[in-house]
Amino acid sequence: MNKIKIGIVGYGNLGQGVEVGLKNHPDMELVGIFSRRDPKTLDTQSPAYLVQDILDFKDKIDVLILCGGSKTDIPKQGPALIEHFNTVDAYDTHAEIPEYFNKMNPIAEKNQKVAVIATGWDPGLFSMNRLMQEAILPNGQSYTFWGRGVSQGHSDAVRRIKGVKEAAQYTVPDEMMINKILAGETVDYNQKDAHTREVYVVLEEDANPTKVEKEIKEMPNYFVGYQTGVSFISEEEFKAEHQSMPHGGRVIRQGKTSKDALSIIDFSLSLESNPEFTAAVNIAYARAAYKLSQEEKYGARTVLDIAPHYLSSKSREDLMRDLL
Amino acid sequence: MNKIKIGIVGYGNLGQGVEVGLKNHPDMELVGIFSRRDPKTLDTQSPAYLVQDILDFKDKIDVLILCGGSKTDIPKQGPALIEHFNTVDAYDTHAEIPEYFNKMNPIAEKNQKVAVIATGWDPGLFSMNRLMQEAILPNGQSYTFWGRGVSQGHSDAVRRIKGVKEAAQYTVPDEMMINKILAGETVDYNQKDAHTREVYVVLEEDANPTKVEKEIKEMPNYFVGYQTGVSFISEEEFKAEHQSMPHGGRVIRQGKTSKDALSIIDFSLSLESNPEFTAAVNIAYARAAYKLSQEEKYGARTVLDIAPHYLSSKSREDLMRDLL
Ligand SMILES: NC(=O)c1ccc[n+]([C@@H]2O[C@H](COP(=O)([O-])OP(=O)(O)OC[C@H]3O[C@@H](n4cnc5c(N)ncnc54)[C@H](OP(=O)(O)O)[C@@H]3O)[C@@H](O)[C@H]2O)c1
Ligand SMILES: NC(=O)c1ccc[n+]([C@@H]2O[C@H](COP(=O)([O-])OP(=O)(O)OC[C@H]3O[C@@H](n4cnc5c(N)ncnc54)[C@H](OP(=O)(O)O)[C@@H]3O)[C@@H](O)[C@H]2O)c1
Repeated sequence: MNKIKIGIVGYGNLGQGVEVGLKNHPDMELVGIFSRRDPKTLDTQSPAYLVQDILDFKDKIDVLILCGGSKTDIPKQGPALIEHFNTVDAYDTHAEIPEYFNKMNPIAEKNQKVAVIATGWDPGLFSMNRLMQEAILPNGQSYTFWGRGVSQGHSDAVRRIKGVKEAAQYTVPDEMMINKILAGETVDYNQKDAHTREVYVVLEEDANPTKVEKEIKEMPNYFVGYQTGVSFISEEEFKAEHQSMPHGGRVIRQGKTSKDALSIIDFSLSLESNPEFTAAVNIAYARAAYKLSQEEKYGARTVLDIAPHYLSSKSREDLMRDLL
Repeated sequence: MNKIKIGIVGYGNLGQGVEVGLKNHPDMELVGIFSRRDPKTLDTQSPAYLVQDILDFKDKIDVLILCGGSKTDIPKQGPALIEHFNTVDAYDTHAEIPEYFNKMNPIAEKNQKVAVIATGWDPGLFSMNRLMQEAILPNGQSYTFWGRGVSQGHSDAVRRIKGVKEAAQYTVPDEMMINKILAGETVDYNQKDAHTREVYVVLEEDANPTKVEKEIKEMPNYFVGYQTGVSFISEEEFKAEHQSMPHGGRVIRQGKTSKDALSIIDFSLSLESNPEFTAAVNIAYARAAYKLSQEEKYGARTVLDIAPHYLSSKSREDLMRDLL
C-alpha cells in the first residue's frame, strides 16, 4: 500500500502531538518536520528541516499538517503553503475563521489543492456536534462546557504579570449544572456562571502575593466576571502537578421532539493531553484531505463539509459492513 | 421560501414521530401520510392516502420518509419507491444493510434519486460516532451501551408467550461498568455482561407465572446468556408505567494518543421517546436528501457518506460564522 506522506509545519505542542500520533496510523508516514528554528536544535528523532526549504518536498508530501499558533503563524503560513500542498490546520480564532476560509479557498481551488481548516475539537468536533444536535433537535437549547483543563492563553496571561514565575490556569465547568442538564432540568446557563477558574502560581522570590492575586482577578477579558481561585505553590509542586495539558468538555443539547418528550444528546471529551488529541483529530482529517484530493475535490473545507467516511482508512464497503 | 415537501410512508410509531416532528421545522411541510390501511381508520389530522395512490404525488413530494418495519416493509417498499421519489429510511437490520444498499443504489442512480438509508440512532448517529472515534483514536477500545430503554423486539417476543397479556422489556446497561470506562479504567467488556434485561409482564387470568418466567429466561437469542429479571404487574400499573418508549445509550472510545496519554470520547443519548427521536434524525436526513438531489448527487448513501452541513437549514456561510 502507498502510505500517505505527511509533513509537519511547526514543532510546538501540537507538532509534537502529530509526530507521536502518526505512529498509530499504519497507512501514514512522516516525511519531515519543518520549523523556523534550526532543525538541529529540535529535540526529535524525525527528519527535520528549515521551513524555507519546504518547496523541495513539493512532490514528496501528500498533506502538510500546519501546527503553528493561530494568532500569527497560521494566517501567514496557511495561504503561503496551500499554493503548493494540501493542508490541514487547527486554526482556532473562531471570529476570524470565515475570513481565513475565504483566503484559503480560492488559492486552493486555483492550485488544485485541498485545505481542511479549523479542525481539532473546538473548533472541530464540538462544532460538528453543535450543528448536528441543532439540526436534529431544533426545538431546544445548546450548552457548551470546557474543562476541567489547562487554558494555554490564560496561563500565558498570568505568566506575564510581574512577580509570576510559573502559572497554570484551569477552566473548571460547573458539574452540578451539567448533571442538572443531563437530568433534563431547565437551567439558567451563561458561559461565565457555568465555569470557574483555578490558577496555580509560582512566585518570584520578592513578589507580593496579595498584589498578584488582585491583578489576576481584575484582568479584563480573561478573569473579570469569573469566579477565580488563586493558589500559590512551590516550584517543585508545580513541576510535579501542573506540567501536563489535560482538557476536555462537552456539548449538550436538550430538545423536545414533541410537547411531552425530551431528548438529550451529549458529546463529551476527557483528554489527558489536549495537544495530542487535537493532533489526533488533525491526522484523521489529513487522511480526509488526501482522499478528497485523490477525488479531485479541491478547495477549502471545514469539518462541517466532510462526510465521516473520509476520516477512515477503511473502504466505504467495509465501514458499512462493520460499523453501521 | 419554498418548503421541502415531505411524505410519510407507514403510520406506526415512527410515522407518527415524523408527523409531530415536522412541526419543529419551518422549512418543511407534510404533504401526506401513505398507509396500507384505509386512511379513514388512521387517527390523524393530516392528509392521509392509500399507499397504492402514491404515484399521483410524484411531482408534489420532494422526499419520502419510509417508516415501515425493517423486517418486511422496508426491503419491499424501499426499492419500489426509490424509482419515483427521494427516500430516507431507518432500516435497522444491521447484517442486511450492505445488501439493501446494493439494491437501492443502482435504482436511485438510474432514476436520478437520492436514497439515504439506515438513519436513526443505531444504525445512524451511533455508527457515525463509532467511525469517527475509531479514526481519531485508532489505538483504543470501543464500547456500545444501550438503554435504559424498551426493546420493541424483546417485548414482542415475550408477548407471544402463552399466558402473557402485556409485556415491556427494558434493556439496562451496567452503570458501574460505564463509570469505570469513563474514568479511564480497563474493563472486560462484552455485550451480554454489560447489559441486563428487565421484563414487566401482565398475565392472562389462568396463566402460570413460574412457567412464563422460565420460558422468558430460556428464550434463545433473546434472553439466554443475559441476567434477566421478570416482574408480574397489574394491567393498571402496566398502563400507567410502561406505555412510553424511552431509550438511549452511548458509544464510548478509550484511546491512547501516546504511551502515556489517554483520551475518552463519549457520545450519549437519553430519549424519552425512541420513535420520536429516530424520526427527528430521519427528518434532518430528509433535508440532506433534498439538498443532495438539488445538487444532482444521486444514488444511495448512509450517514457515513453525508457531510454534516447537509443536515442544517442554514447556509454553509452561516454555519461557519455561528457554529464553528
Ligand atoms: N482546534 C482546537 O481544538 C485546538 C486545540 C488546541 C490547540 N489549537 C491551536 O493549535 C495552535 C498550536 O498550539 P501549540 O500548543 O502547538 O502552540 P505552541 O507550542 O506555542 O507552538 C506554536 C509554534 O511556536 C513555535 N515554537 C514552539 N515551541 C517553541 C520554542 N520552544 N521556541 C520557539 N518557538 C517555538 C513552533 O514553530 P516553529 O517550529 O516554526 O518555531 C510552533 O509551531 C494554537 O495556536 C491553537 O490555536 C487548536
Ligand atoms: N435506526 C434506528 O435507530 C431505529 C430506531 C427505532 C426504530 N427503527 C426502525 O423503525 C421501524 C419502524 O418502527 P415502528 O415502531 O414505527 O414500527 P411499527 O409501529 O410497528 O410500524 C411499522 C408499520 O406497521 C404498520 N402499522 C403500524 N401500526 C399498525 C396497526 N395498529 N395496525 C396495522 N398496521 C400497523 C404501519 O404501516 P401502514 O401504515 O402501511 O399500515 C407502519 O409503517 C422498525 O422496524 C425499526 O427497524 C430504527
